[in-house]
Amino acid sequence: MYLFQNQFMPKEQVPISPEDRGYYFGDGIYEVFRVYNGVIFEPDGHYRRLEKSAKDTRIALPSSISELNGNLEELIRLNELTEGIVYMQITRGAAPRSHPFPKQAEPVLMAYCSPMARPLSTIEHGIRAITMDDIRWLRCDLKTLNLLPNVMAKQHALDQGADEVILHRSGTVTECSASNFMIVKEGVLHTHPANHLILHGITRDVVLKLARELSIPVQEQPFTVENVQQADEAFLTSTTQEVTPIIQVDGQTIGTGAPGAITVKLQQAFAQLIPAASPSL
Amino acid sequence: MYLFQNQFMPKEQVPISPEDRGYYFGDGIYEVFRVYNGVIFEPDGHYRRLEKSAKDTRIALPSSISELNGNLEELIRLNELTEGIVYMQITRGAAPRSHPFPKQAEPVLMAYCSPMARPLSTIEHGIRAITMDDIRWLRCDLKTLNLLPNVMAKQHALDQGADEVILHRSGTVTECSASNFMIVKEGVLHTHPANHLILHGITRDVVLKLARELSIPVQEQPFTVENVQQADEAFLTSTTQEVTPIIQVDGQTIGTGAPGAITVKLQQAFAQLIPAASPSL
Repeated sequence: MYLFQNQFMPKEQVPISPEDRGYYFGDGIYEVFRVYNGVIFEPDGHYRRLEKSAKDTRIALPSSISELNGNLEELIRLNELTEGIVYMQITRGAAPRSHPFPKQAEPVLMAYCSPMARPLSTIEHGIRAITMDDIRWLRCDLKTLNLLPNVMAKQHALDQGADEVILHRSGTVTECSASNFMIVKEGVLHTHPANHLILHGITRDVVLKLARELSIPVQEQPFTVENVQQADEAFLTSTTQEVTPIIQVDGQTIGTGAPGAITVKLQQAFAQLIPAASPSL
Repeated sequence: MYLFQNQFMPKEQVPISPEDRGYYFGDGIYEVFRVYNGVIFEPDGHYRRLEKSAKDTRIALPSSISELNGNLEELIRLNELTEGIVYMQITRGAAPRSHPFPKQAEPVLMAYCSPMARPLSTIEHGIRAITMDDIRWLRCDLKTLNLLPNVMAKQHALDQGADEVILHRSGTVTECSASNFMIVKEGVLHTHPANHLILHGITRDVVLKLARELSIPVQEQPFTVENVQQADEAFLTSTTQEVTPIIQVDGQTIGTGAPGAITVKLQQAFAQLIPAASPSL
């Protein structure tokens, strides 16, 4: 069952208009929520970010956050989802194609959920990444439907036999195709500051909070591709990938080639936050 | 009537899937064709650009260009369109949301046409523009469905009481929100080179060709916002807006505040290319 506006219906019945600005302009925003044991994880962080995306793109939210949350909880219940994700997007509405904001259109909300197990194998063994120019626009902090550069970047990694990209602007590392990126060097955790050049990841926030609780020093400062190659550990963070070690970059082994000690410590602390009925690490 | 894949149908029956990658990633390309007197204007330029957008985004065209063109001509005929536009987009297809290219999906084509008169009033009197940072990605030469920055820029102009934006990167002018930009200084026509930072406009090409035929010197080199303020004439070019003078930039009059001599000469030459049954300038 999908949620479309305020109604629940089968996927086949979702009535998307060919005049939906999401379809021809990518004129919309979205969130992906993690569901563990039937419950949305860190909902406040996601809703705060949604409100920011809505404000800065000037797309009206179709209802209050509490009503929205009630609908997503109902969606989870109707689909009997235990482990998985809820995807929700809101477009500026349907109107004849013209760049200016339409005067009459109502925002269009679509959401669905999908079962997904925790990616325990990559969490345990890590993945391989390659570096690539970050050619995205300069508001990567907004979670919008303009995701073609991210799609192209991810596919580029796969074509090169890697799992993920590490994006950089003239050598300064930003993040991955749909996740944030962190390195560890001499016991210090480094990650790009949460400005307009990266998505302000909810898992990124959780991990930085855990690091501070574990007395791991944190530096939110830009670093370079060269710093990555010399790092002791590297990992990405995302709602679906949690804390996934990166053990190879551009064919070169990072640290020992296995998930590093601080990475594992953060993974364990993160797993502690997950409701008990989920399979643990 | 809309064209969806190979079929003609009323708008209400166009069956867009909620899993269409165009809807949640903006993962698609498009063209807007001008129709004068029932005939597509400069079709070869548009199809060549479509093929380039398709190649660089690695979206397969659903059929040969000649089959595609036949369908668009039939769409024009079915809608009895004389003066207007044909909009056509092609997405990578429908598949469960995941960044990598889907293995099975077929591209999804949607097209419609819409009556539109020539914008004779703005062509004759000109419009007002404001300058604004160009924050778009670095493949503006591709005509993709990721148009949120263009939408935001156009709305910004309207909010400021202007008609259009002139985008610049750190002072170097690129183009407008959905059109190319040119200035005239001491008899020379200046416009940004057709690289990855601007759309390779069909009307831009036509106008540069006309300029050469009229022995107007052309410089395809980057210029600055300061150069614009000191220009004798300024105008934008686009498929729907043709050659539209810009008579004011950031509140400052350009030249005499009326369309300049070279602009008018190019407008007249352009109007000569338009099939006779259309209203002329």
